[in-house]
Amino acid sequence: MKLVCSQSDLKTNLSLVSRAVPSRPTHPVLGNVLFQTNAETQRITLTAFDLSLGLQTSFPAQVSDNHTFTLPAKLLSDIVSRLPEGEITLLGMEEEEEDNDSFSATLISASGRFRLRGMNADEYPNLPEINTEEALQVPVEALIDGLSSTLFAASTEEAKQVLTGVHLTRKEDSLEFAATDGHRLAVLETTQEGIEGASEGFAVTIPARALRELERMIKTQKEDAVVTMNCDEVQVAFELDSQRLTTRKLEGNYPAYNQLLPNQFSRQLSLERKRLLNSLELVAVLADQQNNVVKFSIDSENQQLSLSVDAKEVGSAQESISAEVTGDSIDIAFNVKYLMDGLKAFKGNEIQMQLNEASQPIIFTPLGGLKMTYLVMPVQLRD
Amino acid sequence: MKLVCSQSDLKTNLSLVSRAVPSRPTHPVLGNVLFQTNAETQRITLTAFDLSLGLQTSFPAQVSDNHTFTLPAKLLSDIVSRLPEGEITLLGMEEEEEDNDSFSATLISASGRFRLRGMNADEYPNLPEINTEEALQVPVEALIDGLSSTLFAASTEEAKQVLTGVHLTRKEDSLEFAATDGHRLAVLETTQEGIEGASEGFAVTIPARALRELERMIKTQKEDAVVTMNCDEVQVAFELDSQRLTTRKLEGNYPAYNQLLPNQFSRQLSLERKRLLNSLELVAVLADQQNNVVKFSIDSENQQLSLSVDAKEVGSAQESISAEVTGDSIDIAFNVKYLMDGLKAFKGNEIQMQLNEASQPIIFTPLGGLKMTYLVMPVQLRD
Repeated sequence: MKLVCSQSDLKTNLSLVSRAVPSRPTHPVLGNVLFQTNAETQRITLTAFDLSLGLQTSFPAQVSDNHTFTLPAKLLSDIVSRLPEGEITLLGMEEEEEDNDSFSATLISASGRFRLRGMNADEYPNLPEINTEEALQVPVEALIDGLSSTLFAASTEEAKQVLTGVHLTRKEDSLEFAATDGHRLAVLETTQEGIEGASEGFAVTIPARALRELERMIKTQKEDAVVTMNCDEVQVAFELDSQRLTTRKLEGNYPAYNQLLPNQFSRQLSLERKRLLNSLELVAVLADQQNNVVKFSIDSENQQLSLSVDAKEVGSAQESISAEVTGDSIDIAFNVKYLMDGLKAFKGNEIQMQLNEASQPIIFTPLGGLKMTYLVMPVQLRD
Repeated sequence: MKLVCSQSDLKTNLSLVSRAVPSRPTHPVLGNVLFQTNAETQRITLTAFDLSLGLQTSFPAQVSDNHTFTLPAKLLSDIVSRLPEGEITLLGMEEEEEDNDSFSATLISASGRFRLRGMNADEYPNLPEINTEEALQVPVEALIDGLSSTLFAASTEEAKQVLTGVHLTRKEDSLEFAATDGHRLAVLETTQEGIEGASEGFAVTIPARALRELERMIKTQKEDAVVTMNCDEVQVAFELDSQRLTTRKLEGNYPAYNQLLPNQFSRQLSLERKRLLNSLELVAVLADQQNNVVKFSIDSENQQLSLSVDAKEVGSAQESISAEVTGDSIDIAFNVKYLMDGLKAFKGNEIQMQLNEASQPIIFTPLGGLKMTYLVMPVQLRD
C-alpha cells in the first residue's frame, strides 16, 4: 500500500474527523482513524466513530490500490500537524506476526520517517447506513442560524435525555429549531429560502453534542452551500460535499413548547441588547456570590429598567438602562446566567422584552432580523 | 473618603498587583488589595502581598484625604474590568457596626453603582522594608534577557529549595544569571552596558515565582528603563518608576555550577536551531509514549545529526538534519523535553553543540548574540 497526499489536506481532514474519536475508547480500534483508499477515484476517506457520533470526510491523493486500515488518531494528528507543508508518503504493510490484527504504516516527510503501529480495519465498526424516509435540504446559513440560536439552551443533564438535544420541525416554508432545559426555551424559525424536502410536520430531536460538531464542520463553508439531512427510525446523517456526520436520534416525546409561549402580554420594553448584556455581566460579578439572582425593576414612569443584585455580606450592585416601557411598573427576578446566554445568541442590537406578571415567563425577541424567541422563567423574589 | 480615577488606570494597576493576591488566603485580609490615598501627591497606591511576594504600584487620581482601606481583590477586578472606559468615583465609609473591621465602599460609574464590603487596613501586613546593603541598577533589556534565558531551567521541586530560584552574580561589568534543576543548567551573562552598583562577587538566589512576576511587570517597559534592586539579609526588592516588587531570598548555598561546564570538548556541531527544534517536537510525539528519551546519532562522515525515538509497541520516529560536525561519530541520548525547553529560550538561529563522551554533558551555545550557555546531562542509552 502506498499513498501520497499533501500535509495540509491530511492535517485538515484528520483534525475534522478526530472530534469523533473518544478520549477513552471502549475498544482500542475506536481510538484509531479508519483510512479507506480508492484507486479509481484517487481519494482517501477518513472515518472516526464513537458508536454514537460518526464523522467521515474524503480528499484527493495519489493512491496505488484500494486498501483499508486504521492508525492511532491522536499520535497521527500530533505528528502530521507538526510536519512542514509539502508531500507526505504513507507506506503500509501487514505485519507478519501471530497477532493478525497488526498493521504498521511508515509516514515519510522531507526530513524524517515515522513508523506507527495501527490495526486492521476488520474490527472497525461501519458507520450506520441511513435508509432515507425523508431527505431534507438546508442551506448552510439557515442551519448556522438555527444552531447558534438554540444549542446553548439544551439541557446538560443526562437524566432529561430528550432535552439534551435540539428539536427540528419542518414548517411550510421553513425549519423550526427549539431547545429547552426546563428553565428557558430558545426557538428559531428560519427565514432563508431554499429549504426543501420532508413533509410539513416532520420532526426530529438530535443530540446537542452532534450538532455542535455539525456547526463546527459547516461554519467554514459558503453560506449558500446546501446540507442534506437523512433520517431513519434511529439515525440521522448530515452531508455536505465530501463530509458526512451521523448520529443517533434522541428518543422520547419532545415537550409541546409552543404552549409555553404566552399569546398576549400586559407589559413590553424595547431596549439595546448590548447595553443590557454589559449591565448583566457587571451585576453578575456579585450575583455569582448569591444564587445568581438578578432583580429587574421595570419603571414605567421614568422609562427605565434597573438591574439589582444584593449579595448580602459581600456587597450589592445596581445598573440602570433607559428603555421604552409600556404597561405598569413591576419587579421580577431571574437567573442572570440564563439571561446572558440568550442575549449573547441574538444578533442585532434592538430587542423587545414582553411579560405579564412576576411569576410568569418573560419573552425576548429581536426587533427585525432573525425570527428568534427566547423565553426565561422567573425566580421568586425574596423580601 | 472620596476618590476619582480613570477606569483604565484602576484596571491596569489592579491587574498588576492582583498577581500577588493568594487564591486561598491564610487570613481574609490577604484576599484584599490595600488602597492608600495621598491628598498631597494626588495619587493612589495599591498593594498586594501573600507574605512572600509583594507587589505595589501607584497612579494619579483626584484624592480628597489620606486614607487607607482594603477591598476584595477578585470582585473589584472583575467589576472594574467590565466597566466602560471613563471616570470612576469611589466613596468609602467606616460602617457603624459592632464589627470594627468593617469598611464599605461604593463604586460609581456612568450607569450604575456597586457597594463592596472591605476591611480596615489595620490588619494588612506591611511590605518588608529593605535596609539596603547593596543597590544594583539593571537596564530592563538586560534583566529580560537574563530571566528569559534561565527561568525555565529552575527546579519545580519544593524539596530542592535553593534550586527553585535563579542565582544572580555580579561580575566585573555584567550580571550572571543561572538556574538548574540538577538535570540541566542555563547560564546567561549580560552584554548590555549600564549595570551599576553592588560589588563584584555579590550574589543572591531569588524565587523563580517572583521573577516570573518581575518579568511580566517589566516586559511592557522601555528597554533602556533601569530597574533598581535592593537586598538585605532576608529580602529583595525591585523598583521601576512607581512599581515595586518584594520577595524573600532563597537560603542555602547555590551549587558551584561553573565547575560543571567542561573546559574542552572532543566533538562539536553547528546547526540551525529552529530546524533542530522542529525535529525534536516531531519525535517528541513518540518520545512522550516512552520515557521522553531521544537518541542523537552524530554522523561525522555524512555531516549529519539523526534524532530517533523507539516507542516499542507504538512505533518509532527518525529525523535527520545536516550539520557541520567535527570529531568522531557518536550516539548519545537525552530527555527530549530538556532539549526543547532550552532551544526555545535561545534567540538567534545558528547554534553550536559541544560534547565529549556519551556519559558526559552536552553544551549548547548561540553563534553570536547572547552569552548564553545551556548544559544538559545525557541519559543512558539502552540497547
